[in-house]
Amino acid sequence: MPEKRKIYFTKMQGAGNDYVYIDALGTPTSLSPGTVNLPDLATKISDRHFGVGGDGLIVIMPSSSADFRMRMFNADGSEAQMCGNASRCVAKYLYDKGFTDKEEILLETNSGIKILRLHIEDGETRSVTVDMGCYYLHCKDIPAKGAIDDVMIDEPVVADGREFLITAVGMGNPHGVIFTDSIDDCLVHHYGSILETSDVWPEKANIEFVEVESPTRLKMRVWERGTGETLACGTGACASAVASFLKGLSGNEVEVVLLGGILNIRIDKENGHVHMHGPAEFVAEGHYYYQPD
Amino acid sequence: MPEKRKIYFTKMQGAGNDYVYIDALGTPTSLSPGTVNLPDLATKISDRHFGVGGDGLIVIMPSSSADFRMRMFNADGSEAQMCGNASRCVAKYLYDKGFTDKEEILLETNSGIKILRLHIEDGETRSVTVDMGCYYLHCKDIPAKGAIDDVMIDEPVVADGREFLITAVGMGNPHGVIFTDSIDDCLVHHYGSILETSDVWPEKANIEFVEVESPTRLKMRVWERGTGETLACGTGACASAVASFLKGLSGNEVEVVLLGGILNIRIDKENGHVHMHGPAEFVAEGHYYYQPD
Repeated sequence: MPEKRKIYFTKMQGAGNDYVYIDALGTPTSLSPGTVNLPDLATKISDRHFGVGGDGLIVIMPSSSADFRMRMFNADGSEAQMCGNASRCVAKYLYDKGFTDKEEILLETNSGIKILRLHIEDGETRSVTVDMGCYYLHCKDIPAKGAIDDVMIDEPVVADGREFLITAVGMGNPHGVIFTDSIDDCLVHHYGSILETSDVWPEKANIEFVEVESPTRLKMRVWERGTGETLACGTGACASAVASFLKGLSGNEVEVVLLGGILNIRIDKENGHVHMHGPAEFVAEGHYYYQPD
Repeated sequence: MPEKRKIYFTKMQGAGNDYVYIDALGTPTSLSPGTVNLPDLATKISDRHFGVGGDGLIVIMPSSSADFRMRMFNADGSEAQMCGNASRCVAKYLYDKGFTDKEEILLETNSGIKILRLHIEDGETRSVTVDMGCYYLHCKDIPAKGAIDDVMIDEPVVADGREFLITAVGMGNPHGVIFTDSIDDCLVHHYGSILETSDVWPEKANIEFVEVESPTRLKMRVWERGTGETLACGTGACASAVASFLKGLSGNEVEVVLLGGILNIRIDKENGHVHMHGPAEFVAEGHYYYQPD
């Protein structure tokens, strides 16, 4: 078995989405690219009992097409596209640790280049706004199988004998948004898990349950595909804001209250871009004792 | 709100029981006693999304009656008595970090002084044996309410229409041991949660499901009171070994295979002391950004 290695890490969270961040930016504590099997490291470092523990691993790297690049690995070692909550933490990492003094960072991700706007106070990043790109509604793009039309707005879907009205929104990944008067555990866990794998979704979907508290405030809980309930889902908050706006239940700017924190979503009426503003925090940093396979 | 503080921590695990360890032993990175509200720190640092994450917090301190002292806090901030898996990690922490060169450490805990024997290779602690004290079987001591006798050996208890034969063993906390041909999720989660709060246990109990693989090897899964299934339970492994030995299913030395690792249990036939031998590992160390209330 190869020798154990010390890997320098930073744990951060944004609205309760926590990842382990490692930079490969060339400082003495940086990861040397090519010396580590990233899926193996991601699996081990994300383990909540035997590792640092987190929703996954983020590697921050140089980019040839943007200011920086992030690669994201789920806790099972698979590579992911992008996570809005994680991208805010990347911005804070880069600015607060002195890798950049820009207050607008272009970040290369596996789903394109994202624009991050930092809100600085006393030399520290207090919050970040991410341009999450355009929402999309066509079933073939999401993908979803609408029975009635090419878009799915309030389409009835039955799960375990109960009918739900689902609005399908694409936001980098597929979302099914359901408005309800009262969110409870049974809705999220029982019906969420059934609806995630409904025939409506060729590639499954995240299911959002949303209470409209006012035209500027939504309450949301999310069942994420392949994961279950999580404390926050950035694209889910965006999708819920879009569905609520399209149905006339709220304006184009809303506060979305999640279990793990609050995100502010603004939909640009001109071009359909969705901007997500929210917190990013350092949790801990130090060395992880990594035993490669 | 008070300022954030950096708290130096070490995360360790033994058979999958992971705690955050902080020493108050007077080095420059030590915690200064009296400057921190330990229940508040324990709650926050143990949180798996917003903190370092662990089953709880262990504070290592000087002792007036033994070599060192450990205080243990659950993730909800309540103070606990003692945890065998954690005490092994304390021993490794003290020896490997140079706080002692003793290979037998007397550790003061809230349930008395424990003797830890370190197994050293190449200057590092590879494993540790803990004298867990004597087991006890009298119902009033455990406590348990045996319907038939003053001890409970294979006493029938019905849960959700199914009868289980339970052996009650006290090992610092109350245990109900059930032997079965095959352990599955339904047994542990469904019946374990019902049996934990059975009328048989005035203070609830940990419920162990045990397969006897051979006279020297048991397989065990545990439902811990107030917590649910965990990867390992040191006192549960001891209680299972005791019940198996008393019923003649195994000898006085057994290997107990848990979800999180393997523990070796030896029952001293002369004095009833139970010795637990098992692993202890460093996971990570560094600074936690602590925001006091």
